[in-house]
Amino acid sequence: MKISIINGPNLNLTGKREPEIYGAQSLDDYLQLLAAAYPDVQFTCYQSNVEGEIVNEIQRVGFDSDGIVINAGAYTHYSLAIADALRAVTAPAIEVHISNIHTREEERRYSELAPACAGVIAGFGLDSYRLAVEALDAMQKKG
Amino acid sequence: MKISIINGPNLNLTGKREPEIYGAQSLDDYLQLLAAAYPDVQFTCYQSNVEGEIVNEIQRVGFDSDGIVINAGAYTHYSLAIADALRAVTAPAIEVHISNIHTREEERRYSELAPACAGVIAGFGLDSYRLAVEALDAMQKKG
Amino acid sequence: MKISIINGPNLNLTGKREPEIYGAQSLDDYLQLLAAAYPDVQFTCYQSNVEGEIVNEIQRVGFDSDGIVINAGAYTHYSLAIADALRAVTAPAIEVHISNIHTREEERRYSELAPACAGVIAGFGLDSYRLAVEALDAMQKKG
Amino acid sequence: MKISIINGPNLNLTGKREPEIYGAQSLDDYLQLLAAAYPDVQFTCYQSNVEGEIVNEIQRVGFDSDGIVINAGAYTHYSLAIADALRAVTAPAIEVHISNIHTREEERRYSELAPACAGVIAGFGLDSYRLAVEALDAMQKKG
Amino acid sequence: MKISIINGPNLNLTGKREPEIYGAQSLDDYLQLLAAAYPDVQFTCYQSNVEGEIVNEIQRVGFDSDGIVINAGAYTHYSLAIADALRAVTAPAIEVHISNIHTREEERRYSELAPACAGVIAGFGLDSYRLAVEALDAMQKKG
Amino acid sequence: MKISIINGPNLNLTGKREPEIYGAQSLDDYLQLLAAAYPDVQFTCYQSNVEGEIVNEIQRVGFDSDGIVINAGAYTHYSLAIADALRAVTAPAIEVHISNIHTREEERRYSELAPACAGVIAGFGLDSYRLAVEALDAMQKKG
Amino acid sequence: MKISIINGPNLNLTGKREPEIYGAQSLDDYLQLLAAAYPDVQFTCYQSNVEGEIVNEIQRVGFDSDGIVINAGAYTHYSLAIADALRAVTAPAIEVHISNIHTREEERRYSELAPACAGVIAGFGLDSYRLAVEALDAMQKKG
Amino acid sequence: MKISIINGPNLNLTGKREPEIYGAQSLDDYLQLLAAAYPDVQFTCYQSNVEGEIVNEIQRVGFDSDGIVINAGAYTHYSLAIADALRAVTAPAIEVHISNIHTREEERRYSELAPACAGVIAGFGLDSYRLAVEALDAMQKKG
Amino acid sequence: MKISIINGPNLNLTGKREPEIYGAQSLDDYLQLLAAAYPDVQFTCYQSNVEGEIVNEIQRVGFDSDGIVINAGAYTHYSLAIADALRAVTAPAIEVHISNIHTREEERRYSELAPACAGVIAGFGLDSYRLAVEALDAMQKKG
Amino acid sequence: MKISIINGPNLNLTGKREPEIYGAQSLDDYLQLLAAAYPDVQFTCYQSNVEGEIVNEIQRVGFDSDGIVINAGAYTHYSLAIADALRAVTAPAIEVHISNIHTREEERRYSELAPACAGVIAGFGLDSYRLAVEALDAMQKKG
Amino acid sequence: MKISIINGPNLNLTGKREPEIYGAQSLDDYLQLLAAAYPDVQFTCYQSNVEGEIVNEIQRVGFDSDGIVINAGAYTHYSLAIADALRAVTAPAIEVHISNIHTREEERRYSELAPACAGVIAGFGLDSYRLAVEALDAMQKKG
Amino acid sequence: MKISIINGPNLNLTGKREPEIYGAQSLDDYLQLLAAAYPDVQFTCYQSNVEGEIVNEIQRVGFDSDGIVINAGAYTHYSLAIADALRAVTAPAIEVHISNIHTREEERRYSELAPACAGVIAGFGLDSYRLAVEALDAMQKKG
Repeated sequence: MKISIINGPNLNLTGKREPEIYGAQSLDDYLQLLAAAYPDVQFTCYQSNVEGEIVNEIQRVGFDSDGIVINAGAYTHYSLAIADALRAVTAPAIEVHISNIHTREEERRYSELAPACAGVIAGFGLDSYRLAVEALDAMQKKG
Repeated sequence: MKISIINGPNLNLTGKREPEIYGAQSLDDYLQLLAAAYPDVQFTCYQSNVEGEIVNEIQRVGFDSDGIVINAGAYTHYSLAIADALRAVTAPAIEVHISNIHTREEERRYSELAPACAGVIAGFGLDSYRLAVEALDAMQKKG
Repeated sequence: MKISIINGPNLNLTGKREPEIYGAQSLDDYLQLLAAAYPDVQFTCYQSNVEGEIVNEIQRVGFDSDGIVINAGAYTHYSLAIADALRAVTAPAIEVHISNIHTREEERRYSELAPACAGVIAGFGLDSYRLAVEALDAMQKKG
Repeated sequence: MKISIINGPNLNLTGKREPEIYGAQSLDDYLQLLAAAYPDVQFTCYQSNVEGEIVNEIQRVGFDSDGIVINAGAYTHYSLAIADALRAVTAPAIEVHISNIHTREEERRYSELAPACAGVIAGFGLDSYRLAVEALDAMQKKG
Repeated sequence: MKISIINGPNLNLTGKREPEIYGAQSLDDYLQLLAAAYPDVQFTCYQSNVEGEIVNEIQRVGFDSDGIVINAGAYTHYSLAIADALRAVTAPAIEVHISNIHTREEERRYSELAPACAGVIAGFGLDSYRLAVEALDAMQKKG
Repeated sequence: MKISIINGPNLNLTGKREPEIYGAQSLDDYLQLLAAAYPDVQFTCYQSNVEGEIVNEIQRVGFDSDGIVINAGAYTHYSLAIADALRAVTAPAIEVHISNIHTREEERRYSELAPACAGVIAGFGLDSYRLAVEALDAMQKKG
Repeated sequence: MKISIINGPNLNLTGKREPEIYGAQSLDDYLQLLAAAYPDVQFTCYQSNVEGEIVNEIQRVGFDSDGIVINAGAYTHYSLAIADALRAVTAPAIEVHISNIHTREEERRYSELAPACAGVIAGFGLDSYRLAVEALDAMQKKG
Repeated sequence: MKISIINGPNLNLTGKREPEIYGAQSLDDYLQLLAAAYPDVQFTCYQSNVEGEIVNEIQRVGFDSDGIVINAGAYTHYSLAIADALRAVTAPAIEVHISNIHTREEERRYSELAPACAGVIAGFGLDSYRLAVEALDAMQKKG
Repeated sequence: MKISIINGPNLNLTGKREPEIYGAQSLDDYLQLLAAAYPDVQFTCYQSNVEGEIVNEIQRVGFDSDGIVINAGAYTHYSLAIADALRAVTAPAIEVHISNIHTREEERRYSELAPACAGVIAGFGLDSYRLAVEALDAMQKKG
Repeated sequence: MKISIINGPNLNLTGKREPEIYGAQSLDDYLQLLAAAYPDVQFTCYQSNVEGEIVNEIQRVGFDSDGIVINAGAYTHYSLAIADALRAVTAPAIEVHISNIHTREEERRYSELAPACAGVIAGFGLDSYRLAVEALDAMQKKG
Repeated sequence: MKISIINGPNLNLTGKREPEIYGAQSLDDYLQLLAAAYPDVQFTCYQSNVEGEIVNEIQRVGFDSDGIVINAGAYTHYSLAIADALRAVTAPAIEVHISNIHTREEERRYSELAPACAGVIAGFGLDSYRLAVEALDAMQKKG
Repeated sequence: MKISIINGPNLNLTGKREPEIYGAQSLDDYLQLLAAAYPDVQFTCYQSNVEGEIVNEIQRVGFDSDGIVINAGAYTHYSLAIADALRAVTAPAIEVHISNIHTREEERRYSELAPACAGVIAGFGLDSYRLAVEALDAMQKKG
């Protein structure tokens, strides 16, 4: 099974940026532990601060992967380009968020991407990524 | 570990109601299988079509449970009373939805409850409930 | 032919409450006369002030009845739970109102239930109920 | 008893236009059958695609008729001129619609005319016209 | 000096229609008295319930008249077509209203035509027309 | 003099729930002290988490009581059903709030009930109830 | 006949301020000529930049004057205090504007005062004041 | 105990202005009776129609008084300057209204001041002032 | 091939009306040249200022023509009646505009007709009509 | 004559992505055929998923090209940066869309770019590009 | 060079009022130091809590001063009267704020005055005033 | 002292693009002069048209610089990604604009970045950059 994890702007600073919201663990460290915990899954991890490069990556992996786990950071809330890319490819996507976006500013409650995803998982810290992998695993088993 | 699963209006018809949106399995059947899969967790399952009785149930279990998994159905989108109950109790709550509410009508995209919950899981069919149990389990292990 | 008439909050006060808007005849009296006028129709009449109990009633009669005549009173304007129940059952529903809701306050002009009904009849006093029975009768004859 | 039936733009195409919404029977045929069914009522039927000619017709019949049955088609949703004409004359008016306008686009849910009418009947196909005649008949009997 | 007075829908019922708002004098009678009071002014008076015929009339008189006094009735509030006609011709126009539109429903407070007119006079009963004639007279004297 | 005190959802947790907003004293204790302080007033105290049961109670006491003191909690902000009940009965009602709802979230600043009440008292902790009793007392003396 | 002319903020600069909008004649000069043209009318002219002093002046003259001509300048668009003063006094008021406010910025199209006035005259330069005097004169003659 | 009562625009006309809304008693007379009823409280009463002078008065008394009772009239609904003054001083303020502002026009339902006050009392006629004094008295006793 | 060109209000003044926006060539002259350039196409050209007559024309040609080129002028922005007519007929329609409506007032940016058309061409002066003919030609060739 | 064709995000997937909306032909193939059909025009074709790189390209070609044909895909609806680039350069731009954006979701009906373009062509499949070339050709001939 | 510094409501309390937002230094003290630092500039400093008196001051200094530095406090957000005064005079104005208004409540983010000013400086504590003097100095040197 | 100056889309065209808004001097030339004027400050200047590269640059300099001067051009108005980057780093940022954004289109009045900055300076042409350097200098001296 192939899963592509795609992260958006400023998520490379996780662990360093506003730790009271995003936690103190680095995202890279976490994702390596996550991959190790699922030896049967082939992971690709990608991060970019550039909206269009995230589109590029979705196009690159999206016809071949079994699932996309995407945390598009700030682009979640306004990138119709990323949403269109998710709609254009064949792999199902799951939107994840570290924090519960509904307890934050109004504009962070609206997701432009969610209607282009199979589901949404938010608020569980970095564990949101693991839950998304669990969900994709169950989706694949169900066929 | 004690987990309270609370379901709102019309969820008792799951399996019977609009199966193209909510699936064909009955919720009761599913929850029994789910409970069987987690023998170490003590589950209570509750369903009501009455907003205020859901408030009653949250008050009843919310100071003693280790976590609430709530799918408030239509009340998700306007029940400040349920949101207040979730804020008033000590157990953390996770909002779940069978369908991806973001692909449906505009009014179903707004959740009145989400800001009162620890996190949100939506779009995975009945598997959303299992993911919520997984999430609570991880939250408790993390302390 | 089986028709279920369901009335919502404060309609039990009809005849007593703001008679310049709702008229001076009691709803119970009227519905008895109405039933008598249609001896071939089997009527059930239900009234509750509780939103969720109206959901319960719709679920109870909605898979067996040939038609539902619903005046949900104030819940007309915000009860997505009742609308969901109407969508979930098989019987067609007709929304009725005693007064012409379009001549009243702005919030009473919007009906949350109407998109879940087959049709709407408003403004004819208690005669709105009879017209709804006529409409269901014609719908059944047309098959 | 005199009843004036007034139809607005594109209703002359009924039976020909989008039959999945408006049905396959021609409006003219239907209205002739309707008139035949009420031999004691003197009907006038009028159709125009021109907003102002509908105003003309309302002024022409509105001081003499016992009731107006109006389906103003698209003008329902924005013609303050027609609404003003209905308010200016003495005959009570009933707004009818073939389809349930509440299951269609947002702009078709708002009626500019409804506050100028005695009541509204929508969603019963061409039978909406007959129900309106029934309603006017009952209104006249009640005095 | 040539002045064209143009009246819109339902104004032909003035004196007959809602006299508590529009007064009891007929518009025709009033305009004849008005014309008599200004023997040096050549008046044309036109009334139509049809939006597009009002456009026709504005085009007919608007390149030759010294001023247009327009009370477009309900069309005041939504006819961009009439506003465009007023902008297209060379004669200055004055918008008049019998009632003070600002004490009425919200939608009657907005004028689509006012930005296409030289000025607005509202609230003085039929005397609003005379004031508009006075204003045009002063405008012409000033050159 | 008979006064009915009606409390809505989650107010049974007062003293236990978010004490920095609602204070640490239990509502029951407070109301007993309040009743004791007004020996000449006959009090009934009612609390329910169910919107429709609050409607039931208003109907039960509202034709016989000399005044209703209502704190409908979260229902304050959206229950047209409770507002309708208050309008339907003869006893005057006073809306009270423990906290100053205007210093809280936007949705808590709007009261659906206030237009159906004689007056509003908010922000004085549990003392808001006593002030409402004082107000009803003065209203009755004035006749 | 007594007429009170009240001018608001920055109108004392008329003739000096943005002459392409407000013209080049001073308001004082104009009002002196206007008064001279109506020898039978007793005029008082008042100007202030202070909202509350305009309220004071309306209270001072409003129970004794036969009419108020008010150009409240910028306060037109937001002063509920001035609108309340106009409603509180007995003299009828006419709102005037030098420019056609409908051809300017959106916020200048809304008048807070208009619903508290008998009528509105806008767009005729300083001649708007004369037309208002004419209108008051006609109103008084009509009684 | 020192209490400062501050009244805003047009409240000096109370008893004279729209008595069906504001009652027929003069505010001055009422406040003298109120002061007499509380001999242990040292009252200052102030009224102005000028927004900024109300700010001046709040600054003058607000660091020394034990409480401010403010009815800012029309300024209630838009004066951020008065709200800022109330926030800047140390004395707690209570917003009062003679009428129930929630039964009036939409714009009168919003209070700019309420978030800067300890509480709000509205709808009890002039008795609202007495209730505010009662509330301040209780607040002081509680410390 | 049969193409129907339908023009709305004030377009008969093209060349004469606001030439800086609409150009200086008359529409009639242009359309004659256009017809001459496509000898194999059978053109009908129609212009009316009356909304309902445009509906009439669409109904007249719309079941027989191979394509409609429509510039509904001001009606573009609010005529649901014309949009309904375009939806009701079988010929595909192309909306054209002389000016780029997106550089003009906000209300001219919204087209009520566009969702009922196959495509939109705007901003090329009278050449927009030729491009629409080109487009219909290509559509027909493609079948 | 030099024409620059610039395509935005996900347009590189045309033919592969949602063919029921965008068609089954690849954009590259189409553009090669288009270039071949206009041997006298010098074309540059550019595609990027990155908003800022589209800005770069506009700056690169925009002072030298005779016209820009731009389909900015999702960026059409929110990229003020691209709109600013189009305004900054000297070449006229034409906005094109494959689908009729007005029959899709609300957010796709608004174009941020259109006010910065000479004209708009939408809804003709890939033929929209050819029509834009035709339009630029005509614009250049007209000078 | 002559610079007029004008301060609005509650700024006289700076140093005393909410020091966590506005700092602990008195505005008077700061402005004396500022004046001392620019011996070649002739300063006038004015503060008032009254909107109209700020208008008066702008009119008094605005035709003679080389620049106005204005911090209108709360009036910034709604005083069209002050904005009009700034537009009416010849001196360029700079809007300053002590705090960064964009990190505060929504209503404080909108400035009614900014469009009437040459520029805006906000967020630098009292140093905002010095930066404005610097800016005016540079503007004058540039001519 | 280290200051990072970051410029967004199309600012590389300053001097060339719409000089009536942005002036005729090139930004590069200006920034070289500015750096020369502050020999003790170590400047880095960066410009990109790509939103995500601006995020990259903020991350690169933002933990080491003493201050960021950012003019994000069009991205100012919608880039939550850049705002998040500014919040994530430790250096304080100042938003600058060449023109007074408040005199331009509505969408340019809203800044997404301002709440993430220490302050805002707008409207002084290229001198806005120097004022920002002055402000950072003062901030550093104050500590």
